[in-house]
Amino acid sequence: MRNVTKDNITDVFMGYMSKDMNPRMREVMGSLVQHLHDFARETKLTHDEWRQGIAFLEGCAAVETEDRHEFVLTSDVLGLSSLVDMLHSRNDATSSSVLGPFHVSGAPPLAYGGDMKRHYGGPILLAEGTIRDIDGNPIPGAVIDIWQTAPNGLYASQDDEQDTFSFHGLMTVGDDGRYAFTTVKPVEYTVPSDGPVGDILRACGRHPWRPSHLHYIVTAPGYRSLVTEIFPDDDPYLDQDTVFGVRDDLVMTYVEKPASAFPEGMELSGQVNDPFLHVEFDVKLAPE
Amino acid sequence: MRNVTKDNITDVFMGYMSKDMNPRMREVMGSLVQHLHDFARETKLTHDEWRQGIAFLEGCAAVETEDRHEFVLTSDVLGLSSLVDMLHSRNDATSSSVLGPFHVSGAPPLAYGGDMKRHYGGPILLAEGTIRDIDGNPIPGAVIDIWQTAPNGLYASQDDEQDTFSFHGLMTVGDDGRYAFTTVKPVEYTVPSDGPVGDILRACGRHPWRPSHLHYIVTAPGYRSLVTEIFPDDDPYLDQDTVFGVRDDLVMTYVEKPASAFPEGMELSGQVNDPFLHVEFDVKLAPE
Repeated sequence: MRNVTKDNITDVFMGYMSKDMNPRMREVMGSLVQHLHDFARETKLTHDEWRQGIAFLEGCAAVETEDRHEFVLTSDVLGLSSLVDMLHSRNDATSSSVLGPFHVSGAPPLAYGGDMKRHYGGPILLAEGTIRDIDGNPIPGAVIDIWQTAPNGLYASQDDEQDTFSFHGLMTVGDDGRYAFTTVKPVEYTVPSDGPVGDILRACGRHPWRPSHLHYIVTAPGYRSLVTEIFPDDDPYLDQDTVFGVRDDLVMTYVEKPASAFPEGMELSGQVNDPFLHVEFDVKLAPE
Repeated sequence: MRNVTKDNITDVFMGYMSKDMNPRMREVMGSLVQHLHDFARETKLTHDEWRQGIAFLEGCAAVETEDRHEFVLTSDVLGLSSLVDMLHSRNDATSSSVLGPFHVSGAPPLAYGGDMKRHYGGPILLAEGTIRDIDGNPIPGAVIDIWQTAPNGLYASQDDEQDTFSFHGLMTVGDDGRYAFTTVKPVEYTVPSDGPVGDILRACGRHPWRPSHLHYIVTAPGYRSLVTEIFPDDDPYLDQDTVFGVRDDLVMTYVEKPASAFPEGMELSGQVNDPFLHVEFDVKLAPE
């Protein structure tokens, strides 16, 4: 089209796409460009604002490393990551939540009842539960990849003081589908705000805080993998998670119990002398 | 909002933005996120597709350098750059067109009648015209930043064989607003297609070609700066410019003339022995 105008450019774009291309790619690209053009037309986007947008992307590129994923973080704080999760969640399974940029593959095995707290201070949290199918039956052999921040609010990958797999563990459940481990109570923390995403948050008058949580990826053959988080119901940021990750069924009460209630058969059994926190959280996996 | 859902997440996002933030930023971010979320909901975007999108951005980041601007190129081939231009064009001024990723600041002065062709082969093109205001009056002292590809289809910044400012020149017009220079006839060329943008073009069954053109940035105190391009009307890609830059008023006939018609007072006067091409192109600048 020789005489491209602001009103026909979207149609011209659609006409450039080949009839022979992958139909799903055509659908996704078509919708993306329709919305991109409508956004520019509705806001009458200026050249200066366009340059700020390009500078934002180039700024993300400048800080991107193997351990820092600024484009993922952008998607997280704009709510896109959570939206994609929710579009594919099932009502009869445990809600999924955002993966976030801090998961590290290759965590070491953690035996049933094992401890991730080690020498760290802070209240002991005993987390346990059963991995089930949507009919409530245990799933033997399901694997839980567990990770969380240290009490300083940093993940191992952000913190020179921690080993690579500090507060990471991989637990395989037995025939009864049960898991159990001890850790410290997670703390609320901020997403990295010293880069372009931080600039956006400040410009919007938003804070960078996430509510505290345990993070799980639960997998089992024949079931859809689930990324999820378990939030304590007394966290001050539950209603304003900067990455939109909180779901009703993921908010749990961490119950305080006397030291005498600490169970046998755990790595820390016999060593707990103060009240501890306890959360029971079952996970339901949808079939593949 | 504790129970974020796929249906309320856009409202939750809007609620996170401060009432005290810059109102224009609020408008632009609000529209951007509304469209981003609608895009994901309409296409039911999958995790795999989301990962492909992130990988595309990270791929752009990996090839981005001072001389290669893959994010700008992305905006160009999606039509966003042209759309932003057209949203701010005025009917009574010369149409603007895309800046593209190949402009280099700091071009050397080119005197009236000067030559950019130098030792390069190919048909001589004499380009001239007047820089005017919207009432048709000449604008003395207007400056034209001119650039184009060499006959091999490469800009200086892409080509080790060329000097930094090969086929770049900065011409200041006199009291009559006139400019004139000689060059070679520009050729059609491809945008860089060896990176993530090339992958997108191929996946959509699109070619990477742009029609041949001279590229100008015209500036004068008190007037809006204009980025524009002059296309010859016999170019095969006029109706399918991969960056959507062609406008009706920018398509000109390059007229063949006998050597005897070559004017006096030009750097090449007396040296032209073959027929040459001639284009007269006036530029109208809008007031600031």
